[in-house]
Amino acid sequence: MGNTLESRNLTMLMDFYELSMANGYFTNGMQDKVAYFDMFFRRVPDNGGFAIMAGLRQLIDYLKNLKFTQKDLELFAKKGFNEDFIDYLRNFRFSCEVWAIPEGTPIFPGEPIITVKGPVIEAQLIETMVLLTINHQSLIATKANRLKRAAGDRIIMEFGSRRAQGYDAAIYGARAAYIGGCDATACAIDERDFGIPAVGTMAHSWIQLFGDELEAFCAYARQYPDNCTLLVDTYNVLKTGIPNAIEAFKREVLPRGFRPKGIRIDSGDITYLSKKARKMLDDAGFPDCKIVASNSLDEIIIRDMLMQGAQIDSFGVGERLITAASAPVFGGVYKIVAVEEDGVPVPRIKLSENVQKITTPCAKKLYRLFDKESGKALADVITLIDEELDGIDSYELFDPVYTWKRKTVTNIVAKPLLVKIFDKGESCYQSPDIKDIKKFCNEQVDTLWDEVKRFENPHTYYVDLSQKLWAEKKRLLDEYAKKG
Amino acid sequence: MGNTLESRNLTMLMDFYELSMANGYFTNGMQDKVAYFDMFFRRVPDNGGFAIMAGLRQLIDYLKNLKFTQKDLELFAKKGFNEDFIDYLRNFRFSCEVWAIPEGTPIFPGEPIITVKGPVIEAQLIETMVLLTINHQSLIATKANRLKRAAGDRIIMEFGSRRAQGYDAAIYGARAAYIGGCDATACAIDERDFGIPAVGTMAHSWIQLFGDELEAFCAYARQYPDNCTLLVDTYNVLKTGIPNAIEAFKREVLPRGFRPKGIRIDSGDITYLSKKARKMLDDAGFPDCKIVASNSLDEIIIRDMLMQGAQIDSFGVGERLITAASAPVFGGVYKIVAVEEDGVPVPRIKLSENVQKITTPCAKKLYRLFDKESGKALADVITLIDEELDGIDSYELFDPVYTWKRKTVTNIVAKPLLVKIFDKGESCYQSPDIKDIKKFCNEQVDTLWDEVKRFENPHTYYVDLSQKLWAEKKRLLDEYAKKG
Repeated sequence: MGNTLESRNLTMLMDFYELSMANGYFTNGMQDKVAYFDMFFRRVPDNGGFAIMAGLRQLIDYLKNLKFTQKDLELFAKKGFNEDFIDYLRNFRFSCEVWAIPEGTPIFPGEPIITVKGPVIEAQLIETMVLLTINHQSLIATKANRLKRAAGDRIIMEFGSRRAQGYDAAIYGARAAYIGGCDATACAIDERDFGIPAVGTMAHSWIQLFGDELEAFCAYARQYPDNCTLLVDTYNVLKTGIPNAIEAFKREVLPRGFRPKGIRIDSGDITYLSKKARKMLDDAGFPDCKIVASNSLDEIIIRDMLMQGAQIDSFGVGERLITAASAPVFGGVYKIVAVEEDGVPVPRIKLSENVQKITTPCAKKLYRLFDKESGKALADVITLIDEELDGIDSYELFDPVYTWKRKTVTNIVAKPLLVKIFDKGESCYQSPDIKDIKKFCNEQVDTLWDEVKRFENPHTYYVDLSQKLWAEKKRLLDEYAKKG
Repeated sequence: MGNTLESRNLTMLMDFYELSMANGYFTNGMQDKVAYFDMFFRRVPDNGGFAIMAGLRQLIDYLKNLKFTQKDLELFAKKGFNEDFIDYLRNFRFSCEVWAIPEGTPIFPGEPIITVKGPVIEAQLIETMVLLTINHQSLIATKANRLKRAAGDRIIMEFGSRRAQGYDAAIYGARAAYIGGCDATACAIDERDFGIPAVGTMAHSWIQLFGDELEAFCAYARQYPDNCTLLVDTYNVLKTGIPNAIEAFKREVLPRGFRPKGIRIDSGDITYLSKKARKMLDDAGFPDCKIVASNSLDEIIIRDMLMQGAQIDSFGVGERLITAASAPVFGGVYKIVAVEEDGVPVPRIKLSENVQKITTPCAKKLYRLFDKESGKALADVITLIDEELDGIDSYELFDPVYTWKRKTVTNIVAKPLLVKIFDKGESCYQSPDIKDIKKFCNEQVDTLWDEVKRFENPHTYYVDLSQKLWAEKKRLLDEYAKKG
C-alpha cells in the first residue's frame, strides 16, 4: 500500500535546539555517548481512561528516510555550526535501537510508549518527529474510539478534512480515526494510499446547481441507483427534502431494481428531524432506508441524541474529530532516562517544581498483566530493563505514591508491550495492514473493563513500577533532596 | 524561497463527494456549466473581533499542481465511475478564475475571502483544499496575532512542532504564526523553506547528559558564548539553576568578550520565579540578560503574567498556539452563490433551519472603507459584482438584519479587497516575501480601532451588504418563503 510519507524527506522537521545541542555534543566529543530516551504522556485527553497508540507506521517511514540534504548543510553553515559537525551530518546514518508499543494498543499515562537507545546526537535529533507523529495520530485515534463507544453498532464516518490543521492532519488524521474506530472517511486520498473506504455523495451545491430539488435528486438517483443517499436539508427537511427524496427513490431507484440507501440531514434539530424522517420513510415503504446525520457532532452529542431516541444509523463527524476539538493536544514528551557508562545504563532523573513533571528514570521494560480467565487487562507494570515477568503467575502491585496500597493479582499472564522496531538503525518490524491494526485495536479495547471505558470519572487503570524500579527512582530523589 | 508543497501532488486530497458530484455533472452534460463559489467564515475563533487571512501561497501552489495520476484513475475505475469521465479527469486542466484577499489582511465573518468562478466540476473539486488550506493557516495566524497583542513589544517564539496535528500543521503553522505576529520559530525546516528565523538552545536532556548542571552550562557557554541562553529549571531554578547560570556566564561568556543572552524557565510559577531571577541577574551585573518563559502559555496567561509584573522579555509558546487549543477550528465554508445562464450569473441561495447558515447569494465584490484622515477601517461592504465603489467619498451603511440602523460615513476611501490570483486557470499573482506579508499584517491590524482588537466583547466591525445585494438576497428569501 502506498504511503505519501515514503517520498518525503522530513529530516529537517526538528526543533532547532536539537541541532544546537548536537553541535555542542559533537564539540565535546560526546557523539558516541549512548543515551536512553522514553516517550510517555501525562494525561489522557478529555479526562478519558485510556488512549490509543497510533502513528508508528509513519514514524518508521520517517526514521528509514533520515538524511540531510545539501540545502540543509548550507543552512547549518549559515547558522555557524562547526565544519566537522556539518561533515558528520553529511554522513549521518541512523544507528539507534527503537522499541514501541504497536498501533491500536490502549496506552496509559506514565508508561514508556516509545524507547530510543543510541548515540545521544541521533536520539536527540529525532525528538520532534517522534513526538509529533505519535502525539497527532494517538490524539485522533483516541477521539475516534470515544465516538465509536458513543455510537455503539452504528456507523461513524470521518468527514473533517476541510477543517483539519493542515494536509497531513487530514490524511493521517483519517488514518488514525480508522484505527481508533471509524468505519470510513470522506478523504479520497486515504483510500488510494491506505485502502481506507472513502465515501461521499453530494453537497448542497448539487441541489442548488440544478435549482429544483426534485430534479437534482432524480439526477443523482439515476447516476447511483445502487448507492443513493440524498441530502435533504437544502431548503426544508420535512416540507420538501424528504418528500422529494421519496419521490426520487420511487421514480429512479426502484424501477432499476435497487433499494434506496439513505438520506442525510446536515442542519436543524437532527434528533427531532430524524424521528419525523424515520416515520415518513417507513410510511413510504422504505424502512431499510438509512438516516445519516452530520453537522458539528461529537461523542457527547451523539450519546445525547441516542438517549433521546434519535433515529440515526450513521454519523458523519467532522471538525470535532479531525481536530479533537474538545482536547486538541496529546501531550507526549520525550525525556532522557539513562546514559551508558562503561556499557551499563546509569539512570537520569528530571526534577521539577511541578511534581507531575518529575520523570521516571532508568532503561525500562513494560508489561501488561491479563487475567487468564476473563482475558481482561488488570494493570501495567514498568520494570527495569533486566527484569523478567514472562511466565509469572501472580504479582504484587503497589501504588508508586501511596506505597502501602498493595494488591496481589493471581492467575495472570504478563505480556511485554514494547516491540523492537529498529535494530542498529535498521527497521526490523513490519507494520500490519491497517485493517488488522483496526481489528487489533477493537480487540484490545475489549480487554479493558467497562469502568475504564466510560466518559465520566473512568476508573484509573493501574500503571505501577516494579519494586526495583521504584527503589531506584526513590534513591535518585533522595539523593537530589540531600544535595538541595 | 523553497516550498515543500511545490513537489507534492495533493490533487486527491478531496472529499469523495466532490468526485461523486463531478461524475454526475459529467453524465448530465453539465461539465461546462459555470458556477460561482464563495469561501467565507461565520465566526471569529475565541470570540475575537477579527481574523487574519493566511495560506494563500500554499493554495496557489496546490492549484498550479492539479493533476490526476494513473493511480488515481485506477481508483476511479474501481469506484465505478464512467470511462468518459475518467478520460475527462485524465486530461483535467484547471481553468477557473480565482479571487482572494491577500495574506495578512484582517478578515471578518460573512464576507467572501475567496471567490472561484468556473466550470462547476473544477470549482467543486477544489473545495476541500481551498477550505483546508485557508482554514488552517488563518486559524493559526489569528491566534498568533492574539498572542502578539498580549505580549506587546516582547518577543513571541513559536515552539509547538511536537504537539502539532501532523507535519504540515508544524510547518505551515509556524509560517502562519510568523505572519500573524510571532518573531521566530523553533521549527528548523521553516528557516530552510521560508526564511523564518529558527531558534533554539537546549533541552533538559543537555543538563542531564552532563549530569552536573554547572558543567553542562559551562560547556554550552563555551560553544555559544555570543548567543548563550541557559535553561535553568532542570533541578531547582532559584537554588541551583540561576546561580549556576551566573557562574557559567562569568567563567565562559565574559572572558570571551560577550554578554550573556538569557535564561529560560520552563516550569513552576514563572511569574514569581521571573521576578526573583531578574533580581539575581541584576545583582550579578547582568541587567541586559533576558528572561525567556515557556510551558503551556497562551494570550490570557501572558496578559495575566504581565499584569502581575512578570519580568519576562520573550515567550516561547507551544501547543496552545500550534493547535489554537482554546478554539481549534476555523469554520470557513465554500458555498455556491451563482450559476451562469447565457453568460449572466444567476444567484443561488441556501436556506437552512439554522438562520446563520443561510448564504448570501450572487457573484460579488468586497470593499473596505477607510477614514481618509485617520486611516482607520470603518466598515466592509459586499456589493454585486458589477457595482463600483472606487472613487466614492461617502457611503450609507445599513445593518442587513435591522435595516433601519443606518449611518452615512464621509471623507472615506473604498479599497477593493479581493485580488485576482488565477486567470483562466493560470496563476496571475505573485505572493509577496513572507517578511513583507508579516509587515503588511501588522500595518493592516493597525488600521483597526482598539475596540475591535480587545479580547473580551470586541466591537462588532460592520460587514454590510450594498443596497442592491441586500435587495437581491431579500427577493430570493421571499421567493422561497412563498413556495414553502
